[in-house]
Amino acid sequence: MGTDFAIWRQAILARTEQALETYLPAVTEPPSQLHQAMRYALLGHGKRIRPLLCHAAGLITGAPSSVLDVAAAALEMVHAYSLVHDDLPAMDNDDLRHGKPAVHIKYGEATALLVGDALQTQAFITLTQSPLELVQQAILVRELAAASGSQGMAGGQMIDLQSVGGELSLAALETMHRMKTGALLSAAVRMGALCGQNADAYKKALDDYAAAIGLAFQVVDDILDVSANSATLGKTAGKDSQNGKPTYVSVLGLEASQRLVKQLHQQAQAALAPLGKQADWLAHLADLVIERAC
Amino acid sequence: MGTDFAIWRQAILARTEQALETYLPAVTEPPSQLHQAMRYALLGHGKRIRPLLCHAAGLITGAPSSVLDVAAAALEMVHAYSLVHDDLPAMDNDDLRHGKPAVHIKYGEATALLVGDALQTQAFITLTQSPLELVQQAILVRELAAASGSQGMAGGQMIDLQSVGGELSLAALETMHRMKTGALLSAAVRMGALCGQNADAYKKALDDYAAAIGLAFQVVDDILDVSANSATLGKTAGKDSQNGKPTYVSVLGLEASQRLVKQLHQQAQAALAPLGKQADWLAHLADLVIERAC
Repeated sequence: MGTDFAIWRQAILARTEQALETYLPAVTEPPSQLHQAMRYALLGHGKRIRPLLCHAAGLITGAPSSVLDVAAAALEMVHAYSLVHDDLPAMDNDDLRHGKPAVHIKYGEATALLVGDALQTQAFITLTQSPLELVQQAILVRELAAASGSQGMAGGQMIDLQSVGGELSLAALETMHRMKTGALLSAAVRMGALCGQNADAYKKALDDYAAAIGLAFQVVDDILDVSANSATLGKTAGKDSQNGKPTYVSVLGLEASQRLVKQLHQQAQAALAPLGKQADWLAHLADLVIERAC
Repeated sequence: MGTDFAIWRQAILARTEQALETYLPAVTEPPSQLHQAMRYALLGHGKRIRPLLCHAAGLITGAPSSVLDVAAAALEMVHAYSLVHDDLPAMDNDDLRHGKPAVHIKYGEATALLVGDALQTQAFITLTQSPLELVQQAILVRELAAASGSQGMAGGQMIDLQSVGGELSLAALETMHRMKTGALLSAAVRMGALCGQNADAYKKALDDYAAAIGLAFQVVDDILDVSANSATLGKTAGKDSQNGKPTYVSVLGLEASQRLVKQLHQQAQAALAPLGKQADWLAHLADLVIERAC
């Protein structure tokens, strides 16, 4: 099973790379430098956790792989745009991303701003083309937009920004992360299911699963920020604590954070239980999120 | 007729303000400061040329006003996001917008970045809700995204950025402006028509009209940049020439630019001729663009 999962995962990573290659404008299209920088931000790296979740959820509802590729590419474009803007000097001011110079270091700040803007738009361009049917396009756009806007990812970043140097209650920290990271991870699962049939029947289980791993993802991130080094992370380690950002480790302590991860892992597995073997890949993805092999 | 047009225009401005009020998240929704800043960027000012074009085109295809309100609000959100990001220090570095402090002056750079990001997303959130039908939602998202992405507005801004201090041929200048400003103005006309019936029958006339006024809009902008003052413009005058940006005035000279505006005005009116009286408001809007009373 572990081997089968590894093979499936590799296949999805390869398909996603191919889909991104297809749905990003070619460098030969003007403005060439913008398209080159968009590709630099997106191709050849990344854990692709959102595409993996999308494909794994789509298997349960019998979604065609070619349709899932479109949703997965759009999700990854939104994720990449958020990283490009997050790394800007006015935000986290990070020079390193995926072990390479951040987009604003490589191409300059103004270009990085436009790269993020255009990648967000490209996600919606991507969702509104074949092989998706028009009705499906609209439903997926709605999911992706809701998850990434001011009451989702961008809103979470705003709360993150305001929290620097201050203190957050555990509840406020959870709200921030559910918006900043959780919303888009949940959208990945939901959009995958919506690419197939009868998604409503699985909604409760998948939403519960996604909520648990979404939060676990962030707690693990906070643990790694204090325990891993930059080379392992491919981004600057210790950044959050240096910046005086409240994290699970700063609020709960390291041990309690590790216990919380275990608890969320169990919640994710419990949510999947009613779905049986068809949710195996989602269960493996929960393991990956927790172990951060992914 | 002039009076009737003035009454119609006032009515559309009021409806648009109301639609934006409706389709922007309330300040009471968290994160409150982000929503406040989004509203600051968008409410209570602006020429609303895109909403006016959208409504005027929709009259021709019998589109319901409530549907046009949604499209108009989404267009104005994308326009506002582009201004917020354009004013940032890394871009045009402008402190003044609509006669008030720019968003990054009022709320800080990081918030301005998120305001632009979230306003773009809000446009797609807005387009994917009632009273639009799902198929219509997908068609409008496609139009808006194509017009504002890397091969539309954002791409035009990239070319603009690269042109600073350099020279552009007339053809390259025209390409830049067709992308940077023209694409979204054209989308406004096209989306308005698509909110009604049988939009295809009017496509050629409306596209020709929009192409002419889109370019005229920019040439007039370039003329005003050298001939008007900041108080009249509500933004910093003389900025483009100070920044060494190629403009119609720098490439063609003032008189030839003024002749070009007249020629484009005639092209716009000629494109509308086959549509007869139902295109009267579009014709009046062309006059406004040229006189920049709008």
